[in-house]
Amino acid sequence: MNKMRKIKGGVCAAKGFVAGAAGCGIKSGKATRDDLAIIFSELPAAAAATFTTNKVKAAPVRISAEHMRAARVRAIVLNSGNANACTGPNGLADARAMAAATEKALGLKPAQALVCSTGRIGVPMPMPIVLKGISSVRLSRAGGTPAAKAIMTSDTFAKEFALEVITHDGHFQIGGMAKGAGMIDPNMATMLCVVTTDAIVPAAALRSAFRESVADSFNRITIDGDMSTNDTAILLANGASGISPSPKIFSHALDTVTRALARMIVEDGEGVSRFVEVEVRRAASKPDARRAAKAIANSTLVKCAWAGGDPNWGRILDAVGYCGAKMNEAKTDIFYDELAAAKNGVASGTPVKKLRQIAAKKTFRVTVDLKVGKAACVVWTTDLTEEYVRLNLGE
Amino acid sequence: MNKMRKIKGGVCAAKGFVAGAAGCGIKSGKATRDDLAIIFSELPAAAAATFTTNKVKAAPVRISAEHMRAARVRAIVLNSGNANACTGPNGLADARAMAAATEKALGLKPAQALVCSTGRIGVPMPMPIVLKGISSVRLSRAGGTPAAKAIMTSDTFAKEFALEVITHDGHFQIGGMAKGAGMIDPNMATMLCVVTTDAIVPAAALRSAFRESVADSFNRITIDGDMSTNDTAILLANGASGISPSPKIFSHALDTVTRALARMIVEDGEGVSRFVEVEVRRAASKPDARRAAKAIANSTLVKCAWAGGDPNWGRILDAVGYCGAKMNEAKTDIFYDELAAAKNGVASGTPVKKLRQIAAKKTFRVTVDLKVGKAACVVWTTDLTEEYVRLNLGE
Repeated sequence: MNKMRKIKGGVCAAKGFVAGAAGCGIKSGKATRDDLAIIFSELPAAAAATFTTNKVKAAPVRISAEHMRAARVRAIVLNSGNANACTGPNGLADARAMAAATEKALGLKPAQALVCSTGRIGVPMPMPIVLKGISSVRLSRAGGTPAAKAIMTSDTFAKEFALEVITHDGHFQIGGMAKGAGMIDPNMATMLCVVTTDAIVPAAALRSAFRESVADSFNRITIDGDMSTNDTAILLANGASGISPSPKIFSHALDTVTRALARMIVEDGEGVSRFVEVEVRRAASKPDARRAAKAIANSTLVKCAWAGGDPNWGRILDAVGYCGAKMNEAKTDIFYDELAAAKNGVASGTPVKKLRQIAAKKTFRVTVDLKVGKAACVVWTTDLTEEYVRLNLGE
Repeated sequence: MNKMRKIKGGVCAAKGFVAGAAGCGIKSGKATRDDLAIIFSELPAAAAATFTTNKVKAAPVRISAEHMRAARVRAIVLNSGNANACTGPNGLADARAMAAATEKALGLKPAQALVCSTGRIGVPMPMPIVLKGISSVRLSRAGGTPAAKAIMTSDTFAKEFALEVITHDGHFQIGGMAKGAGMIDPNMATMLCVVTTDAIVPAAALRSAFRESVADSFNRITIDGDMSTNDTAILLANGASGISPSPKIFSHALDTVTRALARMIVEDGEGVSRFVEVEVRRAASKPDARRAAKAIANSTLVKCAWAGGDPNWGRILDAVGYCGAKMNEAKTDIFYDELAAAKNGVASGTPVKKLRQIAAKKTFRVTVDLKVGKAACVVWTTDLTEEYVRLNLGE
């Protein structure tokens, strides 16, 4: 018998993890808020990580990927206010120095720390204040929330989620934190996520569970279709609970955490006024289902209509038509929540007023039934508001 | 010796073409402005046409494609206010009836008229008033501008362009009209274009010249990345000038007309405050160059930065990184007009203030030099403003 219950906290909800934050003044030179965080596993840990697939990769992404190959990770240092992206060889040296300073402060071996950065791009990292900040961080079990706050940029709330999972052998904990895929005052979108668990999970199983979990959570959300140079998601498992859950139990708990964090990221998207779940059903293939769902979720016109509370199914059908997925206009149905907007490619007859009531809600679901196969995909997205444009006009 | 000069007019600039418009009240039921146009070639004409590649195709697109295969086209009937898209079998019958009524009014044989519609989608065409409008249109040499006005939706100006081309045998005329790729009060983007010429051009040569010309003009612009269900471009050549220009001369004149109209469409995009020419150079292949240019031009974040006059090269590099084109961050240069913003993937050292002066202009050029091959592509696009969102919030 297995049960999960939501508990307080994030990256320190699991045993044997401590965290802390410091204010360095990375963005402005003035330390008005925490902008640096360290997470540390007191025990050796198995690690899994996924990084942006953008060909333009920030320096911390390159260094973290290198350290993932080299050694057993024990610590993560994260900062907001500067993405250390598009900074050339000096940026790589800076990311390396941030890892080294963290390793030194914690008495670790080389390549045992990962680095995550988010913030302005193309700007050199202000290393003296960052190194000073790293040496000043005090780690404790209470440091999870300060760490989640320190990585916020345009996020309006800190994103933490944790579970206690009860197995027949005993219980383990899993929890995490994330920062949102909004614009980075005033540069590019970045998603960072760290999940920790005290379950015992072998490294290979951890990596495959995490890969699948990320694919079904963070890789299924989109705010604006712009993939960042800094996206990083990390999972550490230190075994401190003494529990070895079955792969199924562990994956279920992990998926619950990653989905909860992914949902928070979308709900806190910049200028967002609606959270929309887009489901494409009965597509010819998985890639087709995903392509259609992403085309709808990233269509400027569809997103603007949602912002106005307009259930414009024509724009949705249009996006499905140009995305490249196999489809037949004359077979396609479109629903807002449970109400049909279009049946077989034409207006369903449902009064527009009723559809409008759904499209004006804060959260709703759009379902597109292609009737050409058996594959499905769900994507979470937002509307596109004037506020979003205003936030991203730049400096 | 060949010379071209810009002349007044549009679809009636070439000899043997007449046009006219009528106000039917297609959208609102009230005929407050012209919303129907007919263009007629007094002589038999060779025809070429390109249609949307969206799998969701409006009824007039399907009927026009059918008529292009069947017969020698002599007339085009166009309307604004209703796209006749996503209207099922009834919509097809309506488009067919519009063609038939036009053929009858002009004494033509079946399938000699094409149909173009733009406006609301998913709404039945109000056929009684449309058919009455078709029978009321009076055609004349002076009808070009009224026709160009009748197809406007959210366009702020009528788009016409014409040339007189002087060859050593004499001169011919070529001219056209277009409507913009803006949102259709409140539905989807549609681009319509008709070009006419009195040059003698064999049908096969006409088709190949038009295909290439459309690829280098209308297919290289983007306002919002949403491809319409109704996009149609038509070229008629009736030979009335008695001149048979060389393919080179004809293509040059045709390209000048299509590019001028394409540029007008972008300049009149909804809520636009900047016209941006994006050039990607030294890409590994033509498709790569196009993919990178389109990714930049359609990036929500890049377009928002431009709206704010922010020369945010990081967002541009980010878009090139995720578009799938072969690239190496450490080799990539980015320019605003002639000024380097980034060299080899890092800030160029050009003062941001100077770059900002360029990004705040109404028209500027962004060049991305990938240095991985020899292919290039130029795309024309716009910024993304709060006004655009406001215009597209829906009903």
